[in-house]
Amino acid sequence: MSAPLHIAIDAMSGDRGPSVSVPAALAAAREFRDVRFTLTGRQADLERELQGAAPANVSCLFAKDVVEMTDHPRDALRRKKDSSMRRAIDLVKTGDAHACVSAGNTGALMATAHFVLKMLPGVERPAIVSIIPSRGGHTYMLDLGANASCTPAQLCQFAVMGSVLAADLEGAHERPRVGLLNIGEEEIKGNDVVQAAHNLMAGADINYVGFVEAHDIFSDKVDVVVTDGFTGNVALKSMEGAARLIADLMREEFTRTPLRKLGALAARPAINALRARMDPRRYNGATMVGFKGIVIKSHGGTDLFGFQRAIEAAVLEARNDVTARITQRLGAARDA
Amino acid sequence: MSAPLHIAIDAMSGDRGPSVSVPAALAAAREFRDVRFTLTGRQADLERELQGAAPANVSCLFAKDVVEMTDHPRDALRRKKDSSMRRAIDLVKTGDAHACVSAGNTGALMATAHFVLKMLPGVERPAIVSIIPSRGGHTYMLDLGANASCTPAQLCQFAVMGSVLAADLEGAHERPRVGLLNIGEEEIKGNDVVQAAHNLMAGADINYVGFVEAHDIFSDKVDVVVTDGFTGNVALKSMEGAARLIADLMREEFTRTPLRKLGALAARPAINALRARMDPRRYNGATMVGFKGIVIKSHGGTDLFGFQRAIEAAVLEARNDVTARITQRLGAARDA
Repeated sequence: MSAPLHIAIDAMSGDRGPSVSVPAALAAAREFRDVRFTLTGRQADLERELQGAAPANVSCLFAKDVVEMTDHPRDALRRKKDSSMRRAIDLVKTGDAHACVSAGNTGALMATAHFVLKMLPGVERPAIVSIIPSRGGHTYMLDLGANASCTPAQLCQFAVMGSVLAADLEGAHERPRVGLLNIGEEEIKGNDVVQAAHNLMAGADINYVGFVEAHDIFSDKVDVVVTDGFTGNVALKSMEGAARLIADLMREEFTRTPLRKLGALAARPAINALRARMDPRRYNGATMVGFKGIVIKSHGGTDLFGFQRAIEAAVLEARNDVTARITQRLGAARDA
Repeated sequence: MSAPLHIAIDAMSGDRGPSVSVPAALAAAREFRDVRFTLTGRQADLERELQGAAPANVSCLFAKDVVEMTDHPRDALRRKKDSSMRRAIDLVKTGDAHACVSAGNTGALMATAHFVLKMLPGVERPAIVSIIPSRGGHTYMLDLGANASCTPAQLCQFAVMGSVLAADLEGAHERPRVGLLNIGEEEIKGNDVVQAAHNLMAGADINYVGFVEAHDIFSDKVDVVVTDGFTGNVALKSMEGAARLIADLMREEFTRTPLRKLGALAARPAINALRARMDPRRYNGATMVGFKGIVIKSHGGTDLFGFQRAIEAAVLEARNDVTARITQRLGAARDA
């Protein structure tokens, strides 16, 4: 790609809007001096945050509307055509920007991207991909909530897309190991959809390693885990819930007595290191994969650090041109 | 119940067989002096472990076969009619024992209990229930893997059974709060099965609080979480996997430098307290609910401490006569 990379940022998105997104964009602009960033949003809000001090690689595209977290996706799409979210996606549609980032309403972002960008040829449904910390570093998991149920063919498409993402973004794994999430009880080996997807994936041009169980997500056995959006969302929130419970109980135990508090002080370097490794902000920036264009969803409640990670994810995917790579792989699969 | 409580224990079950199950039974026999325990298994194995020193409330019932973890449930049922597992379940069937405990092959245990005990009237499918640690103490969750997919009616039956278990075994909650597991994305509100189950549960005679998300399992918002066995199993193994990863990373960080090791020493009391609270052995002993009789499944890899917890769960359920209570509640629902 000869033109400089260009990332569109929905600056009105997220629980704290421009007060987080704008500083995050400015930090990213300092980090990636060869990348252009366009902030979309209300003129007054953007100007207040920028205070006339935007670096040369940051510009603004003003939009009057803001998609709220409570907006129904259909309403956001139909009634807020001049929203910051829509403008950011439009920039990707026209080819002006190579990727967009939003921390806004997930349903509205998905519906708008679907309507504006359309699906890649050979992909029926978008999927939400995120990285999960694991013993080997991290695991790519999809779908995390875009589809309450999936067909075997859709799961197989997710597998190909996840495989491309893992290969392109990690570098190290030329042939990422792809597993299909199942349960391991003796009598039942998953439902019909999972069985049919297993057969399809075994015949696909991916390094399919077969069924994996949910605890394998955290192991070094697999690089990509495929499942439907219902199960994936439950798995993600189970692990987040468990991690938060452990953090809470740790705090409780470390503050129970004065002696324990002293112990916590002595243990602080190790605990801080652990906290940094498990910090969910480090894993912020899920990819909505399957569209004709790169759409990164940041967690709505994230802070400057987390939002910046989401922007970095957009830069990385745009740099690797993952959309073209997915198209190529799916095209090859159809022609085979 | 005027006859003394009587618990049957499949002593050949579990990764370490009688070397764990027999000492656990002896410990339970000392703890519950008014309860009878019958160990089922191979004569030579039992006699070797007991060494002629069984207390008065422990007896043996010899069985020639052993169901292996690799046995297909159907084969275990058809070809191993004199197995320790079958004998333990038979004792419940004849009314001789009030509950049985096995750490054996889950599929075989389920199939054998299904065949021998039959389902309770009004219950179509058995479900696996376990307690999960939470901020409020713990949450009952079902199904954890007995059914790869469930109908709305079956989920509603699980809700009633889980509610009875939580009420009877906790005492405190006369009307346990029951939630249905769903995902919270804006656009999609779960699949059709979940929607239909939601409507059924709203009309059932339980304290139904509506949809919950997977992170709510660990909160103080709900006492019983209902889901199908596929999702439940994935949720359980996700939380276990996340907890194990955190424990591993903690060990890594606490041993990275000599100074960190000193810090770990100072922090040991708090860390040990945390470990004890999260110890999966404390939560060992899942109930296979829905049969005409109490069947407790211990984790196959557990040790003496964990196996003893499973036996305690059997005693508690037998004492509360949960099977009769479920029958009564489901009967009342049908008559209403």
